[in-house]
Amino acid sequence: MEKIKEFELSREYLESLKASIEEENIEGIRESLEGTKEADVASLLDELEIEEVLFVLRVLEHEFAADVLIELDEESQFKLVQEMESEELAVLLDSMESDDAVDILHQLVVKDREDVISHLQEREKAGHIMELLRYEEGSAGALMAKEFIKANLNWTVVQTIDEIRRQAENVEKIYSIYVVDNKESLLGRVALKKIILGSANTKIKDIYEEDIMSVPTYMDEEEIAEIMRKYDLEALPVVNAKNKLVGRITVDDVLDVIREQAEEDMQAMTGISDDVEESDSVFRLSKARLPWLLIGIFGGLMGAKIIGVFNDGLSKYIQLASFIPLITATGGNVGIQSSSLVVQSLAAKSVFAESIGRRFAKVLLVAVLNGIVLGAVVFGTVVFVYGNEVKFGIVVGFALFSVVLLASFMGTVTPIVLDKIGINPAMASGPFITTANDLLGLAVYFLVAMMLLNL
Amino acid sequence: MEKIKEFELSREYLESLKASIEEENIEGIRESLEGTKEADVASLLDELEIEEVLFVLRVLEHEFAADVLIELDEESQFKLVQEMESEELAVLLDSMESDDAVDILHQLVVKDREDVISHLQEREKAGHIMELLRYEEGSAGALMAKEFIKANLNWTVVQTIDEIRRQAENVEKIYSIYVVDNKESLLGRVALKKIILGSANTKIKDIYEEDIMSVPTYMDEEEIAEIMRKYDLEALPVVNAKNKLVGRITVDDVLDVIREQAEEDMQAMTGISDDVEESDSVFRLSKARLPWLLIGIFGGLMGAKIIGVFNDGLSKYIQLASFIPLITATGGNVGIQSSSLVVQSLAAKSVFAESIGRRFAKVLLVAVLNGIVLGAVVFGTVVFVYGNEVKFGIVVGFALFSVVLLASFMGTVTPIVLDKIGINPAMASGPFITTANDLLGLAVYFLVAMMLLNL
Repeated sequence: MEKIKEFELSREYLESLKASIEEENIEGIRESLEGTKEADVASLLDELEIEEVLFVLRVLEHEFAADVLIELDEESQFKLVQEMESEELAVLLDSMESDDAVDILHQLVVKDREDVISHLQEREKAGHIMELLRYEEGSAGALMAKEFIKANLNWTVVQTIDEIRRQAENVEKIYSIYVVDNKESLLGRVALKKIILGSANTKIKDIYEEDIMSVPTYMDEEEIAEIMRKYDLEALPVVNAKNKLVGRITVDDVLDVIREQAEEDMQAMTGISDDVEESDSVFRLSKARLPWLLIGIFGGLMGAKIIGVFNDGLSKYIQLASFIPLITATGGNVGIQSSSLVVQSLAAKSVFAESIGRRFAKVLLVAVLNGIVLGAVVFGTVVFVYGNEVKFGIVVGFALFSVVLLASFMGTVTPIVLDKIGINPAMASGPFITTANDLLGLAVYFLVAMMLLNL
Repeated sequence: MEKIKEFELSREYLESLKASIEEENIEGIRESLEGTKEADVASLLDELEIEEVLFVLRVLEHEFAADVLIELDEESQFKLVQEMESEELAVLLDSMESDDAVDILHQLVVKDREDVISHLQEREKAGHIMELLRYEEGSAGALMAKEFIKANLNWTVVQTIDEIRRQAENVEKIYSIYVVDNKESLLGRVALKKIILGSANTKIKDIYEEDIMSVPTYMDEEEIAEIMRKYDLEALPVVNAKNKLVGRITVDDVLDVIREQAEEDMQAMTGISDDVEESDSVFRLSKARLPWLLIGIFGGLMGAKIIGVFNDGLSKYIQLASFIPLITATGGNVGIQSSSLVVQSLAAKSVFAESIGRRFAKVLLVAVLNGIVLGAVVFGTVVFVYGNEVKFGIVVGFALFSVVLLASFMGTVTPIVLDKIGINPAMASGPFITTANDLLGLAVYFLVAMMLLNL
């Protein structure tokens, strides 16, 4: 029995591993990694240079090395597969399930992929891999594995157990046995529990569950994640257009999809390009952050131009400058709130979604309500607490009201439009759109001021 | 075989269900819901009034009604359990796994909980539920279920199958059989696959895997989600301080944890309080959004005060006003980038995290680098494109540089501090902190201007 030995993955452990590699102490490397989980070994190796990683993988047993390769982060994986010989990589792919092998092959250019596949020992697996490579990334077809257990409707429990025995090496986690007819059409499933409790001659057709879910090969991986969460599934069969069972998606793949999606959304919202982590180099971190900051700077410089246009009016009414941050910040906050509500409902894809017309009517109503409350609060403060003229209070209050309306509208429309044209709608909460909102807000503020104050 | 019949969940379906409820057409309700998945029935019922939901649950079979109750959204669940009689609720809890029953009981006040528990038919389950209620929400103990299969080290495969048969009703999904010694200490696990392939008299001790992971009852649910994702686990045994096996966490529970966490983070970042959706009422949506917007307004009004202090200088140098949005927006963008990087690395809890000192040195370096680039771009544009004095360009460029440094620092420190005092660090990217950053940025900008321009 082993608790999670996080303490094992210390800097000291890493240093001792590095030392073993430098001394080419093969026994030392093997010993120090023995009993450590694949994912933990991968975390260790992610901290090393590519040549070091390669050295370690070469001294490990193929099966273990394959599992470690799957768990490495994408950057290490990419560098590694470019460095490896086709024969060498093929040996590792031979011990992987087909979906993992495909993930690795996606890191290679098409020509190299074919070379690696030609070196695979198991011809059946090579066929599976070539089939999976044809599906579009992010679809059920690309996410599924070809390893699963299926039983014919007319088999007995004993025949099914024989099939499990035959496939036991290939299918790591069984969960359910899928039931098919003679044409390989998916009919249902039998839980492993029922196979254990059934008697030898029980027919599969007498114990299987007809009422199961399946998804088509083209379904989007995020939709699949939501289905598996909603219906508490640990595996989901995938069928082609003719309802033929072609693969199986397991929950561990979906957990990775969910995590990647969350990271992507976070990056879209915060405008950090590239897949960076706090532990990356100063230069890399800086580079990943600059592009978006420059967009913000560009917007700010445009904003300066807009305000510059109103410089004459501004000199007459210097208090106008004081409320610039109030206007832009509120516009930003309202915009982000609106867009994240839309992003959330786009993700949930509720079947009870209201019509577009009703939704906009509602967005407008909420905006009017909030705009009135916020406008009134600001008017009151500007006039009664800060002691400005009533006319000036009306300007700030009304401008704020208009900005709330405008930002709500933009915040609602932008993610819907982005989603329609195939861009991650979470971008709508990112710096690009926020900057555009700032500029609109400034223009509205000064136009309202110019009109109401006759400047 | 059934595809996902989303089309079934149409508005028309909902209306016909409503009509059946109004006519008290019990057969009609049963017929229309037959063959629909629990989660889908729950989605339908979430759209109805509480009295209608109660009516439907009462005409469904207990087991199905219990599954539907588990899947309802929290709001409907809460209202429903307040309305139900203790006896009635106890009947439904009797058909749930212990962890689901506990989730429902958490919606009741302690007194009512005890009343419901006293009405449970299965005394063993009542004991389990009382045990689970003692664990803190959000811990492994609160997430785990008491339903799982365990086998003694000295049992044979046949004895183990008998145990599976005995428990088959209670444990919906088995995954693995946990192996314990006579003191109930967790020793390892046997995959169901091995039970099927083993011969009747094989001893468990000869086929079990020793090397398995377990977590203590007090571990945080988010950490558990990360472990299950990292190590591709579909179930995780939970042990107490004496290594006694006390429960099991399954991956479906963890999927819900991940989703809730993502929603919480989103809400913390966007400042939408409460658990609202786009389909909620105008008044509810408005109310959920106002508090955070008011914080922003309050910040904006404080900002107006700060700028007001520098009104004299501002009238002499009216161009200063033009660059206010540039300063506040850049401060905001830098702050959000910094804090989300920290939040990300807090969530990952990398064991290779660098020391606090090194991390701050790095943050500082990245900020200096970005600050120099951005400051230079702005200086160049202000002087050479917009044709301002060099002195003024230095003011804006240097103020921007300072704001980038300050916002990086605040964006890094705030989530760390929030995390330490037990607040969701994602709040650091929310309106409260962003507003504070705006104010700091403004102060820095005007102080730099006053000093350098001798105003």
